[in-house]
Amino acid sequence: MKYIKGGVTAAKGFKASGLHCGIRKNQTKKDLAMIVSENRANAAAVYTQNKVYGAPITVTRNNISDGYAQAVIVNSGNANTCNHDGVEKAEIMCEIASKALSVNKDDVIVASTGVIGMSLDVTPIENSADKLATMVSADGGHDAAEAIMTTDTKVKECAVEFTLDGKTVTLGACCKGSGMIHPNMATMLCFITTDCKISSVMLQNALSDVVKDTFNMISVDGDTSTNDMVCIMANGKADNKEIADFGEDFEVFKNALKEVSTVLSRKIAGDGEGAERLLECTVMNAPNEKLAKNIAKSVICSSLVKTAMFGADANWGRILCAIGYTEGDFAVDCIDVALSSCKGEVKVCEKGFGIEFSEEKAKEILLEDEIKLSIDMKQGEYSATAWGCDLTYDYVKINGDYRT
Amino acid sequence: MKYIKGGVTAAKGFKASGLHCGIRKNQTKKDLAMIVSENRANAAAVYTQNKVYGAPITVTRNNISDGYAQAVIVNSGNANTCNHDGVEKAEIMCEIASKALSVNKDDVIVASTGVIGMSLDVTPIENSADKLATMVSADGGHDAAEAIMTTDTKVKECAVEFTLDGKTVTLGACCKGSGMIHPNMATMLCFITTDCKISSVMLQNALSDVVKDTFNMISVDGDTSTNDMVCIMANGKADNKEIADFGEDFEVFKNALKEVSTVLSRKIAGDGEGAERLLECTVMNAPNEKLAKNIAKSVICSSLVKTAMFGADANWGRILCAIGYTEGDFAVDCIDVALSSCKGEVKVCEKGFGIEFSEEKAKEILLEDEIKLSIDMKQGEYSATAWGCDLTYDYVKINGDYRT
Repeated sequence: MKYIKGGVTAAKGFKASGLHCGIRKNQTKKDLAMIVSENRANAAAVYTQNKVYGAPITVTRNNISDGYAQAVIVNSGNANTCNHDGVEKAEIMCEIASKALSVNKDDVIVASTGVIGMSLDVTPIENSADKLATMVSADGGHDAAEAIMTTDTKVKECAVEFTLDGKTVTLGACCKGSGMIHPNMATMLCFITTDCKISSVMLQNALSDVVKDTFNMISVDGDTSTNDMVCIMANGKADNKEIADFGEDFEVFKNALKEVSTVLSRKIAGDGEGAERLLECTVMNAPNEKLAKNIAKSVICSSLVKTAMFGADANWGRILCAIGYTEGDFAVDCIDVALSSCKGEVKVCEKGFGIEFSEEKAKEILLEDEIKLSIDMKQGEYSATAWGCDLTYDYVKINGDYRT
Repeated sequence: MKYIKGGVTAAKGFKASGLHCGIRKNQTKKDLAMIVSENRANAAAVYTQNKVYGAPITVTRNNISDGYAQAVIVNSGNANTCNHDGVEKAEIMCEIASKALSVNKDDVIVASTGVIGMSLDVTPIENSADKLATMVSADGGHDAAEAIMTTDTKVKECAVEFTLDGKTVTLGACCKGSGMIHPNMATMLCFITTDCKISSVMLQNALSDVVKDTFNMISVDGDTSTNDMVCIMANGKADNKEIADFGEDFEVFKNALKEVSTVLSRKIAGDGEGAERLLECTVMNAPNEKLAKNIAKSVICSSLVKTAMFGADANWGRILCAIGYTEGDFAVDCIDVALSSCKGEVKVCEKGFGIEFSEEKAKEILLEDEIKLSIDMKQGEYSATAWGCDLTYDYVKINGDYRT
């Protein structure tokens, strides 16, 4: 497997486009995107677990239930959620895409991200659909990735190439994150495409499995969005022997999917609202996987750990504290904690107690953009990694007046 | 029952004092306090549920296990937690208080709040103990309340008077909160005294019950401290017939305890680190009490709700979102949400959907210091209230460099 340039249109037979249609006031910000496969693709998705969920989720879940999809239409600027007419509007968006792209309207995935609770005006979408459809191209993945951004500061794309059954298979994706990120809410959206030949059932198996260890292990602010969605379309253009069951080919595909999902998860966490630093917390030697995951998440979700990281302050007591309030049975008197970055590593806690370390060295390490928090529990063989970001003035600023 | 002036020394037979002994560098900040009862008092306490807990918790739990206590020694500036010699230092503090106040060392409650993981130098405590002991007085409650403050900006005291068995009974308390508040961690401490005659067992019953609905329903930052403690001493000086069982007298006492605990809980939430506003979230007509509590907590813990409140922005979608990701079975399509303050009330959501409201009126309401978020679930008869605060620039500032 190797990384290649591109994103959601890297795989054969996928085209995309993005433009400013007028949902947002800022005319320099793209707010509408389309992604389309040459042929009807096998499809799978995972959605927010929030009991309050967006109308686009309802419609997409219905459209994708037969295991097929061919196109995506997605807008930013309005989440089309908690409105009386949300489902109706989401269905209109599918119809618009269906007509413009000449695909079946039941094969359209629809997504929206932005403010909750404001009725969505579909007029600008209707007015721009044909233009957007004529613009779709194999080079349009980047435009689509730009159009789905909200408070994201960086475009998030990734693509890999791997070999299956002697054939070159490509898998690419784009996503957005930023706030209300604790997957599931202010919406994490990820669109993945691949030319791999794989059944819808196995596609769903791979996606559901991978999401648990990647997108579901991110948190920017602990708030689970109403509109989170990760979906994947596989159009079979790589012409490999179809993956229709578990086995070696499935594992190869799943590994590639996990790689791309991990890269994008890190990008989402590192570009969390207001974030200056990516935090990666790895828990090792835990008695079970669930506990390893819960502890890793507990640490990256702690407001006090996040603010300490913002201040590049090796206040490890807060890390131990966040470990301590994680639900579950475990011993704290054997836990080691270390902090590291490209500038080196410093052990700050051994067997649950503080040890002497160079504050100067710690500061140097913590001033970097990517910080690793390593927790060795020494009471089992399971491990897990979670990704988050620091809590900064800008997070407060961005969210203090998001609607204005 | 009526509110009276004073705090932890309002009840008969209790004295207290506080001074700067030198644990903190800032000489204008008191950092050591003592509270003492004339006689040995019945005692009860609840502690942090964090698996990482401070050495003072270990020692206090042991000392109070026989149901008696007579004095409290507490310092701020250092939490005496996660140090190799923590228990030893906490025991030395008890010995110091024991000698200075002439009480049995096993009858001393010891508490510490401040930075985790730094060895506590007991020399300044030793040097100031006799002075502090001579200073104790019935007017010293306020000094003690000052000495336990960390990032608190306001002294937190409360006292009430009520009648039991024809006798006037007084119950008073002081506490501190501010950060690492989700009771249990950066430490919520509360010391309650009463002259009520009540057995240790019933005292513990009342305290455990009341804490669930009061202190355990606050959150400043979702971080549960390693050193949280609420303790109560009852010295019997009111000379009422001893409360030794459940019944009317117990309920009267418990109500008074709940009143004081509620007032203090609100004070802690409203003075959360960096806070500009107290948030009070009440969930009504829920199918069960646990769900009502979980939803109320979910809302006041949401970073996005907290930042919206900081910006006085009626972004109710975030409230619905936080309701939606609360664990449990419930319907969202019948939920109403309203925002209110002394400036009036505005309904923002009806049956799970947004409704039109005056943004201007909402702004006026949300600019006040105390904001109520009312959630009517219309699917049961249980209710619960939780208290929190907004998330501000100052929270980030305070915690970005807490140790420096």
